Amino acid sequence: MSKNQNIRRKKQNVPKAASAARPKPIKRRPAIKAALRKRPNGKLYAAILAGGIGSRFWPLSRETTPKQLLKVVGDESLLKCTIKRLQPLVSPERVMIVTNARQAEIIRLHLTCDGGSQVSPGYVIEPMGRNTAAAIALAAIDLYRKDPDAVMAVLPADHVIEDGKPFRAALKAALQAARDGHLVTFGIVPTHPETGYGYIKSVPRAFRKIDGFSIKNVERFVEKPDIKRARQYLKDGGYYWNSGIFLWKASRILEEMKQHLPGTYESLTSFRDAEGLSAAYKNLKDVSIDHGILEKAKDVVVIPANFPWSDMGSWSSFNTVLKPDSEGNIVRGRVVDIGSKNSIVLGCDRAVATIGLKDMIIVDTPDATLVCPRERAQEVKEVVKILKKKGYTEHEIHRTVERPWGSYTLLETGEGYKIKKIRVEPKRRLSLQLHHHRSEHWVVISGIARVTRGEEIVDIGINQSTYIPRGVKHRLENPGGSPLEIIEVQNGEYVEEEDIVRFEDDFQRK
Amino acid sequence: MSKNQNIRRKKQNVPKAASAARPKPIKRRPAIKAALRKRPNGKLYAAILAGGIGSRFWPLSRETTPKQLLKVVGDESLLKCTIKRLQPLVSPERVMIVTNARQAEIIRLHLTCDGGSQVSPGYVIEPMGRNTAAAIALAAIDLYRKDPDAVMAVLPADHVIEDGKPFRAALKAALQAARDGHLVTFGIVPTHPETGYGYIKSVPRAFRKIDGFSIKNVERFVEKPDIKRARQYLKDGGYYWNSGIFLWKASRILEEMKQHLPGTYESLTSFRDAEGLSAAYKNLKDVSIDHGILEKAKDVVVIPANFPWSDMGSWSSFNTVLKPDSEGNIVRGRVVDIGSKNSIVLGCDRAVATIGLKDMIIVDTPDATLVCPRERAQEVKEVVKILKKKGYTEHEIHRTVERPWGSYTLLETGEGYKIKKIRVEPKRRLSLQLHHHRSEHWVVISGIARVTRGEEIVDIGINQSTYIPRGVKHRLENPGGSPLEIIEVQNGEYVEEEDIVRFEDDFQRK
Repeated sequence: MSKNQNIRRKKQNVPKAASAARPKPIKRRPAIKAALRKRPNGKLYAAILAGGIGSRFWPLSRETTPKQLLKVVGDESLLKCTIKRLQPLVSPERVMIVTNARQAEIIRLHLTCDGGSQVSPGYVIEPMGRNTAAAIALAAIDLYRKDPDAVMAVLPADHVIEDGKPFRAALKAALQAARDGHLVTFGIVPTHPETGYGYIKSVPRAFRKIDGFSIKNVERFVEKPDIKRARQYLKDGGYYWNSGIFLWKASRILEEMKQHLPGTYESLTSFRDAEGLSAAYKNLKDVSIDHGILEKAKDVVVIPANFPWSDMGSWSSFNTVLKPDSEGNIVRGRVVDIGSKNSIVLGCDRAVATIGLKDMIIVDTPDATLVCPRERAQEVKEVVKILKKKGYTEHEIHRTVERPWGSYTLLETGEGYKIKKIRVEPKRRLSLQLHHHRSEHWVVISGIARVTRGEEIVDIGINQSTYIPRGVKHRLENPGGSPLEIIEVQNGEYVEEEDIVRFEDDFQRK
Repeated sequence: MSKNQNIRRKKQNVPKAASAARPKPIKRRPAIKAALRKRPNGKLYAAILAGGIGSRFWPLSRETTPKQLLKVVGDESLLKCTIKRLQPLVSPERVMIVTNARQAEIIRLHLTCDGGSQVSPGYVIEPMGRNTAAAIALAAIDLYRKDPDAVMAVLPADHVIEDGKPFRAALKAALQAARDGHLVTFGIVPTHPETGYGYIKSVPRAFRKIDGFSIKNVERFVEKPDIKRARQYLKDGGYYWNSGIFLWKASRILEEMKQHLPGTYESLTSFRDAEGLSAAYKNLKDVSIDHGILEKAKDVVVIPANFPWSDMGSWSSFNTVLKPDSEGNIVRGRVVDIGSKNSIVLGCDRAVATIGLKDMIIVDTPDATLVCPRERAQEVKEVVKILKKKGYTEHEIHRTVERPWGSYTLLETGEGYKIKKIRVEPKRRLSLQLHHHRSEHWVVISGIARVTRGEEIVDIGINQSTYIPRGVKHRLENPGGSPLEIIEVQNGEYVEEEDIVRFEDDFQRK
């Protein structure tokens, strides 16, 4: 990961975990034995860094729908793709998601309830965001304690790598090198003079070949270049895009951490409980793994790789993963365009009309629209900051909110009322709950609703309605085989989501 | 009105009136007496041309919300402003709206039910749009039969003239000239080399002065110039913007019509009933008053006028009527902008984020968004054509639809259901009606609803609901002093507006 990318990550507003749950008390200072680096049989694990929101992808990304949960290519989220891409090399139970508590809950529900195949990785919970060095250290310590021989791949959750096969082949070669103690980085062979990525400069010659992959010593890490330099790099050769993907033994990275970031190492190996971790994290150095460790460490190597890769850094990245039409446009949704060029227009079910755009980005969602020239796509995160500052909610939540039992769409809200369309997937049900401050009217518009209301349970169908007075325990269930949709009219002096008391939940929510 | 403007008007898709109602059978060929032109006492009437949709103002304008009903400046629609601006010179009962049947009904409800002061002008109903010569002829004939001495001002419904006083002063001077038989045009003294308007070239010297206004003979009408020519016109002097506002005796314009458009004159003075008018209209020459008559007529004069005027031809015109900020931007609504210049961003209650725009127009409405460079603002009408062709509805109707009793907002629609928020103004009520194909659930969210359901009448309040089965006569009324709001969930195999049988209506709708 390049320097600039690190700065970006650092600035993301990662929500703070109220209490960072750690599975069990940990021993002080695990003994890192240099001798371990020769043991050739360490198993491969994966630590997926998923702490960010990806606010450059607003208005598609929101605090409650981080970028890694977006379905950018195909039908599955970037995160699911990242996990699946590792198989069969790394099975899901050897995958760890490194994130904060709030995101972990969102990700857990997403991975277990989003339809399709389900995956249940482990979680490493950071009490707050402190850049990649801290996140990787926490994961490495966790892993090392479970398996001192562990080899870990470190992967961002939000990259697009469309072909998994060459990716896994490179990973496999890296695994061998890592087992021998190398800290392996993946350098993407540049196809054009890109100014949006950092570069890895290798020595000219490979010192080793594994399965056809060259293993080269890293000479230095290079920040995002200007176009002139980028062209020179391409011409000179030996420069690779820094993919932000790494692979090493947990023991080896901790060994380097102990030496180059001793404060971080000390803090993360000596805390006793969640409060201790939280206190320790606050004082950690906010630094990337590249700057904090890799630029100084021994045995840092690069594997040049050819798989098509995009870090999806901003809306501009769409051109690398979706094929533009003959005018250079990428157009999705209910869009009417007259003569635009080299533009990205992502609509939804609203009508968007564009005329004569050049190098523009339009992203439309049910409640918010972005209009921005391509060259200023990086500034979208500033928009998100302004929205937050203004007290708007469009940076936080979508109009349609995914839930483990289905989804709800906010149709309208006003003083003392809220109208939602609620969709419950077949055989799923909401929690048994009550609200202190609102009553609810439900009208079924498709499917069959099984309604628990106090002591009674009734089934109601299309065109039937029911009323849930405030303070009455209730539950909505879809006993049928097709989706249930109802319109809910909430009335009360307070109609926010927080007014919910859950008694029983299929999805272990509180 | 310039030639190009005429072409524009000609291409507007004016909805065709199914049956053009004419107040009473008319006599054949009114005798036009040249001698009349000397009679000095003709009363002043106004014919307001309001047949167009103004599709260049999409997405704010829709077929059911034509441009003249938009509140561009201040709290009243362009049309209301046009009518009020004439007072006290022309009282509302001497105002005629020239339009088609569909628009006449929309305008009638708008003028009588839109709150504020009510105005009740007369209507001249065209069976279809056939450009300004036909519309003015129809109005002139109508007027001449009522009052052979009538003087008529002809005014487009959708111009912005912010100060009514100098406008009425010019009108008053023109009235004197018209009584003496002149055909008076209003030329706006150019303030800059505008390429968007047609020009009127006068002879150098005024042959008469009335109340300080020069009366000059017209040399010729000039089409929209290129920038070089426009600069030359400004330098040369004697060129005025063609405002499209005219004033003449009905008898005089008919006299010229008889000579220069004898077919139109013949057809419009000899039809016997609505069918006859409709048949006649189809074959009328589609020509503007400028081209069809004024360029050839005798005694055409221009009054140079200084009142600030805008024809609101496209979104670009906003700069002439709303004051841009220091960066040249006009921004309205819930907009977050970073560094845009010379742009128009009109938002609504959705969030719109703009970054670094230059000379762009963004217009956002609840269901549709326009993004377009200023210089291509004319092409918005093409967008409307495409929307229509694609079978979308966003060219036709807004998400919130004004009704004489209040308004409704479509919140959501899907197969077999439709969700609306209905707002009823105090002391108003919907028609007594029934639906053959849908049932309705109503939940009150504010105010008190008096519900007629079959034989019973009940009042229900906030958080109460009622159910109207299909086929049951019902009525919704607001007996209270504050607005009533309800959520309506419609269920049925057919949930379109057409499924309504009205038994009784306060607003004489069918």
